[in-house]
Amino acid sequence: MYGAGDVRVENVPDPVIEHPTDAIVRTVVSCICGSDLHPYHSKPTADHATPMGHEFIGVVEDLGPDVTGRSPGDLVIAPFARSDGTCSYCPEGLHTSCVHGGFFSGAQAEAVRVPQASGTLVRIPADVDEALLPSLLTLSDVYGTGYHAAVRGRVTDGRTVVVIGDGAVGLLAVLSAKQLGAPRIILMGRHTDRTDLGRDFGATDVVAARGADGIAAVRELTGGQGAHVVLEAVGLMPAYEQAIGVIRPGGTISRVGVPQYEQAPVGFGSLFGPNATLTGGPAPVRAYIDRLLPAVMDGTVDPGRVFDSTVTLDQVPDGYRAMDERKSLKVLVRP
Amino acid sequence: MYGAGDVRVENVPDPVIEHPTDAIVRTVVSCICGSDLHPYHSKPTADHATPMGHEFIGVVEDLGPDVTGRSPGDLVIAPFARSDGTCSYCPEGLHTSCVHGGFFSGAQAEAVRVPQASGTLVRIPADVDEALLPSLLTLSDVYGTGYHAAVRGRVTDGRTVVVIGDGAVGLLAVLSAKQLGAPRIILMGRHTDRTDLGRDFGATDVVAARGADGIAAVRELTGGQGAHVVLEAVGLMPAYEQAIGVIRPGGTISRVGVPQYEQAPVGFGSLFGPNATLTGGPAPVRAYIDRLLPAVMDGTVDPGRVFDSTVTLDQVPDGYRAMDERKSLKVLVRP
Repeated sequence: MYGAGDVRVENVPDPVIEHPTDAIVRTVVSCICGSDLHPYHSKPTADHATPMGHEFIGVVEDLGPDVTGRSPGDLVIAPFARSDGTCSYCPEGLHTSCVHGGFFSGAQAEAVRVPQASGTLVRIPADVDEALLPSLLTLSDVYGTGYHAAVRGRVTDGRTVVVIGDGAVGLLAVLSAKQLGAPRIILMGRHTDRTDLGRDFGATDVVAARGADGIAAVRELTGGQGAHVVLEAVGLMPAYEQAIGVIRPGGTISRVGVPQYEQAPVGFGSLFGPNATLTGGPAPVRAYIDRLLPAVMDGTVDPGRVFDSTVTLDQVPDGYRAMDERKSLKVLVRP
Repeated sequence: MYGAGDVRVENVPDPVIEHPTDAIVRTVVSCICGSDLHPYHSKPTADHATPMGHEFIGVVEDLGPDVTGRSPGDLVIAPFARSDGTCSYCPEGLHTSCVHGGFFSGAQAEAVRVPQASGTLVRIPADVDEALLPSLLTLSDVYGTGYHAAVRGRVTDGRTVVVIGDGAVGLLAVLSAKQLGAPRIILMGRHTDRTDLGRDFGATDVVAARGADGIAAVRELTGGQGAHVVLEAVGLMPAYEQAIGVIRPGGTISRVGVPQYEQAPVGFGSLFGPNATLTGGPAPVRAYIDRLLPAVMDGTVDPGRVFDSTVTLDQVPDGYRAMDERKSLKVLVRP
């Protein structure tokens, strides 16, 4: 990406092992993320391109000498953040704060260099059914991110949950809230094809209205009280304000939409007065893959339904356009 | 209080029962709160006075016909927020969001009308040792507020806790964190007589520096990581920024200092990036009295040590001045 709206496919040298903890992985499936649309809207134009993409499944091609437990030919899921698995934070499940951590870039490509490969890459059976690849790919980011929202929001049975945003993360936050036992899941979104999928994933109610009308609708659905938990999967200020508007006193707002703001209301009139909690952050998806993998492998859940179109590498600029114009929910990339 | 710096003692008619759920309580001990200093600094001057004071112990004098379980002559603690005890929120321990709730005003007086008396007032033995009254009075606000900070911050054994603020609430947040098992409690405050009391209450370290120096000192004490839990007992923006500066990734900032700001940093560079949680609010002290009372009654803890001077009603303006000038930590009022 050279700047807002300017995505190009270019030939670059194949990646090589740079550190003894690196792996080179040949991409099998990759995709475009809703968070890629933020720079697609606002990135200043530059002479040098930023490699894009942070979600992929691939085959291990080469390994640095310090990588353990992985072999060439392994099929692996790469979480969007690298992690060593051994620092103070990783064993606590906070891989996004790994002291050797950082975020990927450049997975919309034929091959990727993966630092901290021992900690980062998760092996899956090499003979896995091809039809499962889209669902497995969601473990790289969007499913784990939706799940993180629900975990940090302390969703349990008996909790009324509002999900703000009908993108892939919002829809998979619905699925996650359902898995964690929420009996009532209100999805706020205005794209019917998406909210229909949200209903399939477990949403019990859909509110298409936004702003004050949307808040009033949720309050009416919750006997005037608001929701115990709000999962915010957008990252824009109107979504934050929506969250404040629908939270029940004592409730928890869990954000996983990357905030496109730094300052927000947190005082007596918003968070403090009602003893509301604000939590969330970049999802340590590595922490959740083991937990979420079995139900994906046996087909109990099908999070891959968020992919509604597929492109080749050459068509990636079309994929960005389709997602930007809301013609596609999430685009799978097959190099 | 007529305005900033303008506290007067006036004769007004005795309060009377206005609603069938009211009680009239004759004040035995009352006090001045750190939060009373916020209007003492900033309240616009008005023609009509605002009655002040929201913490007291007193003797029930009169009862509305709907009040149950209380009798004239009962000695009672009044939490600073009234609550009916029966709405959706009270049984969850969120009495500050009671649908019949609200905050007291006018307890720096000879008598007080207490709405929702059945839910609000907590009986204590009428023959209680006079020497215990200061400690029992802290259950009306500051001890319960410090405890709320620690509870919402999920202080447990194994957690490193930073307490920001060496006022009465901060010091009792130290005591509360100690009671909840925190092995390491770092108190940030710069009044030695207060931080000495904080050490008696359980602080293992004291950091007198503020701003960047204070943050650096806490980071050094915590191996560069910061604290699992920050209890913010001030309410001013520098204290919020201090909290952001010393929080460990994945940690929780629990605020009980009434925020004197509405907007604050919550984006990628402050809360979101490190998956930090922001919680807290006005303390439902009514929820904690039963839990905290036994150790006060048997002398295991002595939270009343936060009172370092006593005034009569006529001397209340002097009491404000002494607290404002930091000559007194907390002033007891004996009508």
